[in-house]
Amino acid sequence: MPEIQPLSEAHVEQALQSLPGWVWTKDMLYKSFTFSDFVAAFSFMTKVALQAEKRDHHPNWSNVFNRVEIYLTTHDAGNKVTVRDTAMARAIEDVVKL
Amino acid sequence: MPEIQPLSEAHVEQALQSLPGWVWTKDMLYKSFTFSDFVAAFSFMTKVALQAEKRDHHPNWSNVFNRVEIYLTTHDAGNKVTVRDTAMARAIEDVVKL
Repeated sequence: MPEIQPLSEAHVEQALQSLPGWVWTKDMLYKSFTFSDFVAAFSFMTKVALQAEKRDHHPNWSNVFNRVEIYLTTHDAGNKVTVRDTAMARAIEDVVKL
Repeated sequence: MPEIQPLSEAHVEQALQSLPGWVWTKDMLYKSFTFSDFVAAFSFMTKVALQAEKRDHHPNWSNVFNRVEIYLTTHDAGNKVTVRDTAMARAIEDVVKL
């Protein structure tokens, strides 16, 4: 499947242009989100969880109070960044705007 | 407040007797939970989130697909384990049984 081919560095850099705050690190896309409190952070996580399940593409993520850190990688591509990750990052950005 | 006094090693060890799978590490109580899939894992997280907010005691936790790792510590006690953590661990054990 083309969507689980690792993206080239150029493709990832291009995708990052429209993904503010996301960084490419250790074969993952990473972003830290800070909210007003735990309720806001977990509400965001719930929306992301629904997107993750719908896309069958689940994040590696952690939460402490009002902060949520998300790492995206494609396990089936040998833990490399693929379009499934950039698409999920975009979906997460859309969730933030809700 | 007595509830945010760090617990002695003896007290933590005693609490752990009734908290199967929890370990005391680096001034935190830790347990890893594995579920059948992401939906089960996130459903558990939602229940834990409601307990956390109700108790105003929020975990440091992470999730990857069907696994949830939880670290409990009391920030207001200088990141030591207090009865707020052992009580939260018990509440989490109760949530698992739901």
